[in-house]
Amino acid sequence: MPHPLDSFFAPASIALIGASRDHEKIPGRLLSMLRRNEYPGKIYPVNPNYTGIDGLPCHKSIADIGAPIDLAVIIIPARAVLPALEQCAAAGVKNAVIISSGFAEEGGDSTAMQEAIADLARRTGMRISGPNAEGFLSQVQRVAATFSPAVDVKPGQAPLVATARRIGIVAQSGGIGFAYYNRAKALGVAVSYVVSTGNESDLGAGEFLDYLVQDASTDVILLFIEGIRDVEKFLVAAQRAAEIKKPVIVTKVGRSGAGERAAASHTASMAGWSAAYDAVFAKYGFIVSNDLDEALTIAAVLAGNPLPKGDRVAVVTVSGGAGIWGTDAVALRGLQVPELSRSIQAEIRTLMPSYGTARNPIDVTAQGVTSGGLQRSVDLLTASNEVDAILVMLSLSSEVRMPFKEEELKPVLAAQKKPVVFYSYTLPSDFARRELAKSGVVVLSGLAHVGVALRQLVDFATFDLPKPAEELRRPAHDLSAFLQSPVLSEADSKALLRAAGIALPEEVLVAEKSGLDDAIARVGFPLVMKIQSPDIPHKSEVGGVRVNVTTKGEVFLAFEQLLNNARRHRPDAAVQGVLLAPMTKKGVEIIVGTMTDKTFGPMVMVGLGGITTELFRDVVYRPAPVSAAEAGAMLAALKAAPLLNGFRGAAKADVAALAQLIADISVLAARHAGEIAEIELNPVLVHPEGQGVTIVDALVVGRR
Amino acid sequence: MPHPLDSFFAPASIALIGASRDHEKIPGRLLSMLRRNEYPGKIYPVNPNYTGIDGLPCHKSIADIGAPIDLAVIIIPARAVLPALEQCAAAGVKNAVIISSGFAEEGGDSTAMQEAIADLARRTGMRISGPNAEGFLSQVQRVAATFSPAVDVKPGQAPLVATARRIGIVAQSGGIGFAYYNRAKALGVAVSYVVSTGNESDLGAGEFLDYLVQDASTDVILLFIEGIRDVEKFLVAAQRAAEIKKPVIVTKVGRSGAGERAAASHTASMAGWSAAYDAVFAKYGFIVSNDLDEALTIAAVLAGNPLPKGDRVAVVTVSGGAGIWGTDAVALRGLQVPELSRSIQAEIRTLMPSYGTARNPIDVTAQGVTSGGLQRSVDLLTASNEVDAILVMLSLSSEVRMPFKEEELKPVLAAQKKPVVFYSYTLPSDFARRELAKSGVVVLSGLAHVGVALRQLVDFATFDLPKPAEELRRPAHDLSAFLQSPVLSEADSKALLRAAGIALPEEVLVAEKSGLDDAIARVGFPLVMKIQSPDIPHKSEVGGVRVNVTTKGEVFLAFEQLLNNARRHRPDAAVQGVLLAPMTKKGVEIIVGTMTDKTFGPMVMVGLGGITTELFRDVVYRPAPVSAAEAGAMLAALKAAPLLNGFRGAAKADVAALAQLIADISVLAARHAGEIAEIELNPVLVHPEGQGVTIVDALVVGRR
Repeated sequence: MPHPLDSFFAPASIALIGASRDHEKIPGRLLSMLRRNEYPGKIYPVNPNYTGIDGLPCHKSIADIGAPIDLAVIIIPARAVLPALEQCAAAGVKNAVIISSGFAEEGGDSTAMQEAIADLARRTGMRISGPNAEGFLSQVQRVAATFSPAVDVKPGQAPLVATARRIGIVAQSGGIGFAYYNRAKALGVAVSYVVSTGNESDLGAGEFLDYLVQDASTDVILLFIEGIRDVEKFLVAAQRAAEIKKPVIVTKVGRSGAGERAAASHTASMAGWSAAYDAVFAKYGFIVSNDLDEALTIAAVLAGNPLPKGDRVAVVTVSGGAGIWGTDAVALRGLQVPELSRSIQAEIRTLMPSYGTARNPIDVTAQGVTSGGLQRSVDLLTASNEVDAILVMLSLSSEVRMPFKEEELKPVLAAQKKPVVFYSYTLPSDFARRELAKSGVVVLSGLAHVGVALRQLVDFATFDLPKPAEELRRPAHDLSAFLQSPVLSEADSKALLRAAGIALPEEVLVAEKSGLDDAIARVGFPLVMKIQSPDIPHKSEVGGVRVNVTTKGEVFLAFEQLLNNARRHRPDAAVQGVLLAPMTKKGVEIIVGTMTDKTFGPMVMVGLGGITTELFRDVVYRPAPVSAAEAGAMLAALKAAPLLNGFRGAAKADVAALAQLIADISVLAARHAGEIAEIELNPVLVHPEGQGVTIVDALVVGRR
Repeated sequence: MPHPLDSFFAPASIALIGASRDHEKIPGRLLSMLRRNEYPGKIYPVNPNYTGIDGLPCHKSIADIGAPIDLAVIIIPARAVLPALEQCAAAGVKNAVIISSGFAEEGGDSTAMQEAIADLARRTGMRISGPNAEGFLSQVQRVAATFSPAVDVKPGQAPLVATARRIGIVAQSGGIGFAYYNRAKALGVAVSYVVSTGNESDLGAGEFLDYLVQDASTDVILLFIEGIRDVEKFLVAAQRAAEIKKPVIVTKVGRSGAGERAAASHTASMAGWSAAYDAVFAKYGFIVSNDLDEALTIAAVLAGNPLPKGDRVAVVTVSGGAGIWGTDAVALRGLQVPELSRSIQAEIRTLMPSYGTARNPIDVTAQGVTSGGLQRSVDLLTASNEVDAILVMLSLSSEVRMPFKEEELKPVLAAQKKPVVFYSYTLPSDFARRELAKSGVVVLSGLAHVGVALRQLVDFATFDLPKPAEELRRPAHDLSAFLQSPVLSEADSKALLRAAGIALPEEVLVAEKSGLDDAIARVGFPLVMKIQSPDIPHKSEVGGVRVNVTTKGEVFLAFEQLLNNARRHRPDAAVQGVLLAPMTKKGVEIIVGTMTDKTFGPMVMVGLGGITTELFRDVVYRPAPVSAAEAGAMLAALKAAPLLNGFRGAAKADVAALAQLIADISVLAARHAGEIAEIELNPVLVHPEGQGVTIVDALVVGRR
């Protein structure tokens, strides 16, 4: 199916605006990179100072070319870029990549120049990548529209290609994008595209991601993000990737305070809040990795293997110590390394000397390799239904010797229905890489990364895109009347929630002593009394709470005391009265909330209440709204999840009711995203199964 | 200072027992490895089948040599090993390395053969390494007594050596030990020794560690452990390393359940319990790493740099994205990446184009490199007192171009007083490695590992060996009378603790109703009543506890009920009576305990009480005994430490009293290690500062 960016990635003709004869400098490198990578289309150098460059005629201007141009690559001083773009548009150029720097990343007037570029794109329909981009490589189409040294081709050296499937790379940093490419090449992982997105005046990471998602030559996507600008396009692409189950491995930087400061200053991007990014990634099943080699290892394993059908791993090695280490590496990630059945152990034991071991890990010993034991063990395990993946650990540093017979290995792996991952504890030699590449094997050399990759494969294999959130079971009301002040008191917050259809206990706000009798009659003993004021968010700190009040006399006394305490501690607070609420029966203390992220909008969160949320950061976020099923998945992702599932002989908590509450609150936050900035239900008590939940305290913050 | 193992590591003569002419096989490789590495001493091949091998006369037996032998390297079938060793001993051979396999790792009779080897070593004084070892390399003395292909020397290729300081490697796996060496060579990290310890019939990892600790040519130690056998020697070596502050980087495998099973089966070693290992490592300031590349990165950074004086890092780069990533990599490890002062920013800004940034991370941009900006920024930061370490991030993949001027960089780094670490996001070229090696720079290529390494350097720089534990403030009593049953009831446990001088609240065990009045008078109201039986460890589960009892009538009623409940639920339990104890004032709930590890003996632990210990595994162990100061460090290492230090406006807890209790309990456990297997104080309530701690419940388990 044709895509609007096809002419960008597979241009029939390229104009090089700012072409140069100096191959040492960036403008000169662009032309030589295009030609060394054997670009099959037409190249038109443009530079008024030359009549020809490297045997090609050089044009004074775009207008002079007089032929259709699919792509203009622009590398001229910043202030000359806009006029050049105007000429491109006039000449009907379809796409442009601006390599030049000195725009929004510099601030001031330079930002205005970038805005003018964006305007031009909108006005003319010409699609523009950059400025401040390192360009792109289309490996499939042989378009190296970049000055990155990583795309240089060494004459006489055959590229190492182990995988038939290809990875595509979208990076908001040219240095990192092409570093991925540089390392992928060294591993023998085939690449479809590398795109450096630069300042994204027009084309952004989201739209490029979308291209790779629909692209048939891209099987796995690597994404490097500082901050997403084209959020809607990004979300559409993410949804599509999840639907067709094309894996996306994502690195998001700017996670630390200092890193966030740097990301914000770097390309003036919307760095946003990493927890919101992670929530979005989790929703779409993106594989998050924060290390370059780890991300590539995951990509390599995905490109070279089918997905596993379960989480049982066999570890096959020639070194006992390595086998134990490999077992740890996968088992500590929660995968199983099951002891093999007696029958398969007996078969494997015939392939090794007496001091080998066949239990799993399987140590065929150095001597066992010589007699072909390593390979035959792998053959056996590939066919067995006792394991779902195989980790082969050996030393592949030799430049002359291989522990496998190439012609025997290839058919086994070609017929494989499960991942077989090769790790070398010594540094793999070029010879070993090339030999194993013939069987489609990428040799990996970071063990912890291999453990992570296998875990990620298992998780990705079982990932299902959550169904869209159901609408609120009752229709929403107009809530604007409840949102007159920016911060609502507990009573007002609860009134809003009730109006939105959220179930809450019967509670009565009493402003005058005369209302107490009626309130007691409605609420019943024992009860709780809480001072109410939008100006007093922390009621306990001003002596504003009484629990377990059991007599009328106590109620009247407490009413006076609570009001007096408030007056003494917060003389300026607008006090609404005292809220009378029933004492709640016991339950697991949970916090449920929503907040608004500047990039992705409303988010819903859940965490264990009390001290654990803060101390152990045990909270889970998702973009709002979520369905009850997705809320259930959020709960399962909490480290404290066992507490809800009958911890230490306690009753199982009503997880279904809690999940429904999270879903309802998330729909409320999403529906009223323009009015409500935050909701915090803290605590929510989750009672035993079938007995529901109780919202004990609530706080709503409006956007005004 | 001479060391008993000097003749092992620097032998003047080597007998090769089982020497062979076949260079393809392991026995043949040993001779060629020794000669290729230019072993300067005498070599005596021993094999009755040959008269000469590769130009050397071959001897029929050890006795035939007729010259002093410092080291015999033995590679003959397992059953021939013991007779050969007897001949060695008779001939006065000082040391032996047994490469042959088929001993304890095989089990059965083969284990007995290994025990006979150990006996022989004890009997004759000959020191024996192995069997089932891969031998050793002494780089300094040019002794390659191993068949590992990793020590092979390529003619005509100069080794890459970047560091003047050397790392020594002790590994309980030959494959892994020489893999460290293989990778260290590729990085340019100089190596002193590599020792593969095999089955450790005589010489163990602990004794080899001790050798490297005292060895002047070893500056950093890498240790790979499956399970320590010579525990006492290991602890002596560890203590010495900590005293002279020689860094030890340790990997302990067999951490997962499956890995532990494999470790136990592999070399029949005492795999032990990883938490105890980690406790020992923490005590001696060992740097724990569970990844090969990470461990080597830490070693490389330690070998090539001074220790930092603080935790402030400058990140210098030519790629904005890389700079943000690097900032994350160190900041997420808790290091600071401070914004630089205006004055130094102004200086740095003169070294880069307008779109660079000098705040930190410092992005001099690709263009800034050309004009020398990268190097001059590093110079400035090296001299500045605003940062303690510098992380330089760039692309070093070029085979012809360097971003630094070698002759200018070298003096800066030579005069450096702080770590300057170089990371390349593309794969570093051999050219770049060799160029930077001239300045003593190791180029690293795993960013997450670099972040960990810098963190570990900062921690190691501030590590102090804890002072030995003070003795119990009161002298210990004979506790044997309290340890008549294997599991003690709460009352008996507390009686033992009181006898050992541990302070506990006044509590009274009442066996007959007639004793209640007196008990009430002593304990006072409100009080708690708990059933007492060594057969009822979980009192609540049998309805065996009453809290907040406030009247005499309640006490008498509860007494009957508790006894009845116990009879009904546990008719066979030996019931001692009911314990009356005062209600405890509030405090932070802590668990303190001791247990016995099969490798390292008594351990003391502390964790937050309640659900957090189990859910979040937030517990800290140390070998017992500990001083109060070390106990304080244990408390500070808890994730939940903030809870003790005035969390959310609560009073600061009496950490000093808690630390003293931990120290006292640890001394008790260590002193009575032969009698007491476990102590569990759960909960201990820690009251506000100055108000001490209360042991609410206690359990002691004897070793019988």
